[in-house]
Amino acid sequence: MAASGGNGESTTKPKVYSTPINFCPSCGGQVSKQVPEGEVEERAVCTQCHKVHYVNPKMVVGCVASYDNKVLLCKRAIKPSLGLWTLPAGFMELGESAAEGAARETQEEALTIVHIVAPYAHLDIPLIGQSYIIFRGELEKADFKPGPESLDVRLFALDEIPWDLLAFTSVTVVLKKYIEDIERGAFGVHHGVIEKKPGSSPSDPDGYVLRDHMVVPGPR
Amino acid sequence: MAASGGNGESTTKPKVYSTPINFCPSCGGQVSKQVPEGEVEERAVCTQCHKVHYVNPKMVVGCVASYDNKVLLCKRAIKPSLGLWTLPAGFMELGESAAEGAARETQEEALTIVHIVAPYAHLDIPLIGQSYIIFRGELEKADFKPGPESLDVRLFALDEIPWDLLAFTSVTVVLKKYIEDIERGAFGVHHGVIEKKPGSSPSDPDGYVLRDHMVVPGPR
Repeated sequence: MAASGGNGESTTKPKVYSTPINFCPSCGGQVSKQVPEGEVEERAVCTQCHKVHYVNPKMVVGCVASYDNKVLLCKRAIKPSLGLWTLPAGFMELGESAAEGAARETQEEALTIVHIVAPYAHLDIPLIGQSYIIFRGELEKADFKPGPESLDVRLFALDEIPWDLLAFTSVTVVLKKYIEDIERGAFGVHHGVIEKKPGSSPSDPDGYVLRDHMVVPGPR
Repeated sequence: MAASGGNGESTTKPKVYSTPINFCPSCGGQVSKQVPEGEVEERAVCTQCHKVHYVNPKMVVGCVASYDNKVLLCKRAIKPSLGLWTLPAGFMELGESAAEGAARETQEEALTIVHIVAPYAHLDIPLIGQSYIIFRGELEKADFKPGPESLDVRLFALDEIPWDLLAFTSVTVVLKKYIEDIERGAFGVHHGVIEKKPGSSPSDPDGYVLRDHMVVPGPR
């Protein structure tokens, strides 16, 4: 079925960037794109063992780790967006929970322990098949240093965020909502969809639109 | 890195059920399990083209669709848990948002239009590598019928939920939290981890423990 606007209206499904499946991961046979019986989407189906191979969005898990009214950002030592600032985040691994993954990424990127305290934002980015699950966390102490994937790690006051040097639009959106919530006096839980403008870079601060934003406001 | 308890404590990562990758989906070469340079986890690495193939948790998206203080449940016409009752839910597809996926699944399973109104629960099930993202939704009208994957579709008052005939522990947990929130007078946003008891069936009503539950209480 075509993607819908959250309310059942059909829209044209955009082309999603994903690695093509050419061979069956199970038996090594060649695959062909077919619509399996009872389905509506084209899938990679093995011409030899007939297994259907699904490709689904990937979850990125991370956190806004705070200490003394400041938030922890990591300067990326790896591509993409090398040299730009990000929230600690990365792909969720099998066998862990999203909160555990967010704590693990903070440990890996900033060599520090964060206590995950609440869910905060879930942002889908359909164009790249990613779903960001971001928590609020509190640093145990202001003791951190760059892990292998970071060039630098720092606490930023909210009026010092380097907006033009953020690594990803998801980071921009999360930090904007976080500051709005601080000003409002209550942390909510946010959900929304980042529509990347075609051809925009991952870090383009104007390269996106946030649509279908929903928020459950938390207690003041 | 080993999974942590959300606060950095190392625990042993459980064995996760996932389809093994024997051949490279890209070039068809044989893969071997190796720890790539700079990583800590074993991955499927192609011995021919050297691509690393990651396997990540899958997102299941769905909703509690309400109408007239009742909730919509679908009786499954497919395995697993054939004949048992579920919330409309299914694997998130590439190119859609989680909310769009939840509306699409409701359309497919109950042939009805639901308006997604708020995020509600995110439940990780590490043992099976799945993450449930559940929304609250409102049915446009009490007009629905079983889609191809359902034997029956009904609205249940909250004191009529067929607890012993629910398809999945995730459905049990979501409906329990939903009823608690109704009694409390406010819908929050929930996050938690379902630990399946080894050997329990997907639908065993006592086959799980909910750990690391966090809730952001919504407005009354």
